[in-house]
Amino acid sequence: LPELMLSDLAGIKGENVIFTSNETPSSEYVYAYEHGNVINLDDITHIQFLKKSLGGKFPKTICFRYNPGNLKQGCNAIIGKPEEAKYGLTREQILEAYKICKAEGVEHFGLHTMVASNELNPDFFVDTAKLLFNLCVEIKEKCGVRIEFVDLGGGLGIPYREEQKAIDYDELAKNIKNQYDKIVVPAGLDPLSIYWECGRPITGPYGWLISTAIHEKHIYRDYIALDSCMADLMRPGMYGAYHELTVSGKENAPKTEVYDVVGSLCENCDKFAVQRKLPKIDIGDIVIIHDAGAHSRAMGFNYNGKLRCGEILMRSDKSFVEIRRKETIDDLFATIDLANVKNFK
Amino acid sequence: LPELMLSDLAGIKGENVIFTSNETPSSEYVYAYEHGNVINLDDITHIQFLKKSLGGKFPKTICFRYNPGNLKQGCNAIIGKPEEAKYGLTREQILEAYKICKAEGVEHFGLHTMVASNELNPDFFVDTAKLLFNLCVEIKEKCGVRIEFVDLGGGLGIPYREEQKAIDYDELAKNIKNQYDKIVVPAGLDPLSIYWECGRPITGPYGWLISTAIHEKHIYRDYIALDSCMADLMRPGMYGAYHELTVSGKENAPKTEVYDVVGSLCENCDKFAVQRKLPKIDIGDIVIIHDAGAHSRAMGFNYNGKLRCGEILMRSDKSFVEIRRKETIDDLFATIDLANVKNFK
Repeated sequence: LPELMLSDLAGIKGENVIFTSNETPSSEYVYAYEHGNVINLDDITHIQFLKKSLGGKFPKTICFRYNPGNLKQGCNAIIGKPEEAKYGLTREQILEAYKICKAEGVEHFGLHTMVASNELNPDFFVDTAKLLFNLCVEIKEKCGVRIEFVDLGGGLGIPYREEQKAIDYDELAKNIKNQYDKIVVPAGLDPLSIYWECGRPITGPYGWLISTAIHEKHIYRDYIALDSCMADLMRPGMYGAYHELTVSGKENAPKTEVYDVVGSLCENCDKFAVQRKLPKIDIGDIVIIHDAGAHSRAMGFNYNGKLRCGEILMRSDKSFVEIRRKETIDDLFATIDLANVKNFK
Repeated sequence: LPELMLSDLAGIKGENVIFTSNETPSSEYVYAYEHGNVINLDDITHIQFLKKSLGGKFPKTICFRYNPGNLKQGCNAIIGKPEEAKYGLTREQILEAYKICKAEGVEHFGLHTMVASNELNPDFFVDTAKLLFNLCVEIKEKCGVRIEFVDLGGGLGIPYREEQKAIDYDELAKNIKNQYDKIVVPAGLDPLSIYWECGRPITGPYGWLISTAIHEKHIYRDYIALDSCMADLMRPGMYGAYHELTVSGKENAPKTEVYDVVGSLCENCDKFAVQRKLPKIDIGDIVIIHDAGAHSRAMGFNYNGKLRCGEILMRSDKSFVEIRRKETIDDLFATIDLANVKNFK
C-alpha cells in the first residue's frame, strides 16, 4: 500500500502502475482499483477475493502472474527454482483464470512473469519472452482471450563487478523482436505491448553510499571500519553481494592492502567487503560504495538501534536536493511507549 | 547509542550496563562514560580513541573483548570462525592492552569474549569459561593486572525445535564452578565475578508472533499466506531459522497437510516455514509463531513499504500492555520529503 501511495505522490498514476503483489490484503486491492492501477493477480483464488474486496465489481483490465514451474530452467539463487517459488499461477490455472475473468466481463488482459533476479545473460530474457508469447497464443486458442500486453518482469542485472558485462539492450530488443515476428505476428496478436520492470538498472548504478573510515584494526585480518553499516546497505551481509569500493582521492592509487571493510553492527556478516584488495585507507578517508541505488536504503533496518541514512538526489544540472532525511533517535523511539517500557513485571 | 538510551530509560543504569560495541563512534563512548556504563573495548586502537573522545580522561573500569582466533574450534555459522570474525583483540594485543591501561591509571578490569550464537551444547560454554579463566591467570602473571570480572558473552541457545534439549543451567553452573575451583582459586584470583549475556534465553521463548491466515494457494506446492511477513520476523528468511508454528484451536489436530507458510514480501525467502507438516489451516485461522522474542521486531525492516508490527507485553498477572505500537504510513513517510520526491529531473 505505501508503495502504491508513493507512486501516486511521485506523479506515477492510474494505468501507468501495474500492481504486482502476493498474499495481498483487501485494502490494497481496493486502493489500486480506486486509483485505476492495473492489478496483476498472483493466484487463481484471488479472482473471487478481489471481487469480494471490491463489493462484487471487477476492474476492466486484469493481468495474471505466471509461474512456469520446471519449464523454466537455470533460474538463479535469489528467486530460486520456479516450482519452489511462491509466486504466480500454474499453466492449467492461468488458462482457467482467463476463462473465469472473461465470463465476469473483464475487457482487457495482460500476462506477467518474473523468474530471475539480477540476471546478466540476455538470452535468459529472450527465452522468457518466447515463453510468454507462446502462452499468449495458447490463451487465445483455448480461452478466446486476447492478451494486450505482456510484462516480462524485472530481474535485469547490472555489472556490480568491473569485469562483468552490462546487458546490451539494443541487442536484447532485436532478439525479442525476432521472436515477436515469429510467434506473435503470425498468430494475429499484433499489436502486443511489452513491459519491463527495470528497477535495478534504473536505480542501482546511480546510487552511492558515502561513508567515512573511522577505525582501523589489525588482528587475524586487517579491518577498516566505516560509519555506515548493514542498516544502510544489507546486500553484502545478507547474501554476500559484491559492491565496488573506491576511496575518494585514491581512485588510481595502487591496491597494496587486503581489507575486510566493516560496519558496526553486532552481526559478523556486517561487512561491505571481505578480503578486498584496496589502496591503503587512512582514518577520515571517504569510502564510496558503488551501485548502492537498488535495495539499499529500501532494505534498511534499525537493528542494534542503528539509524538509517538519508538520501540525496543529484539533479541533471548537478544540483543536490534531500529527498529523505537521516533518521533521528526520536524517529526510532516514536512507536515505543517509554512509560510502559519501564515496568516489565 | 539508542540501545544505551533505552537501557537507561528502562531503569538499567550505570555499572549494570556493559557497553560492548565494535567500530564505535566517539559520541557513544562519551554517552557510556557520562552514564557510568562499563566500557568493553573491541580493539587495541580504541584505547587512545577512547582517551581522545573523553578529552584525555579514562574510566575507572575497562573491559576488553578477546578473540581467541583458531584456539576456539567448532564455532557456529552465525558468528563464524573467530579468526575470520571482526570482533575482539588477539592474545598478544590483549596483554599489551591491559599494560597500557594500567599505566594510564585504570583501576578495575574485566575480560569478555563471545564466540558462538544460539549454541545448545553446554560443554561449549564450559570450554569458554576455562579459556577465560586461564587468560586471567596469564594476565595476572604477565601484566600484574587482576581481572575482577569475566563476561562469558551470550550465545546461549534455546530449543527452537521440539526435539531439541534446553541447556541445563544448574549442570552448566556446576561444571563452570569446577573449572573456577581448579583454575581461579589456586591462582589467588578469587573472588572473580562471572557475567553472562542471556538475551536469547530471556526474550526468545517468551515472544510470540500472532498472525492470521489470509490466503491459501495451490500451485506446485501448497501455500498458506499470513498477514505478517519478514518485516516482523526475519530469521527464517535470512538464515533458514526454524520456528515452531501452531494453529490456535488446532494444537492437537492431526498434521495432515504439508505447507509453505509465507508472508507477502517480494522476496521468495519470505517464508515462515518450508514444507512443514501442519493441521489443515482455514482462512481466518490464528497462526502462532513461537520463540519470536529474540531478533524479531528488533530486526524488522520496511522493505516493500511494509509496516512493522507492535509489541504487547503480558505481565505476570496476565494483564496486557502495549509497549510498542504498530507502525503507520505516517511513520514510514516521516523522513521522506514528499515535495522533493515529485521531481526527479
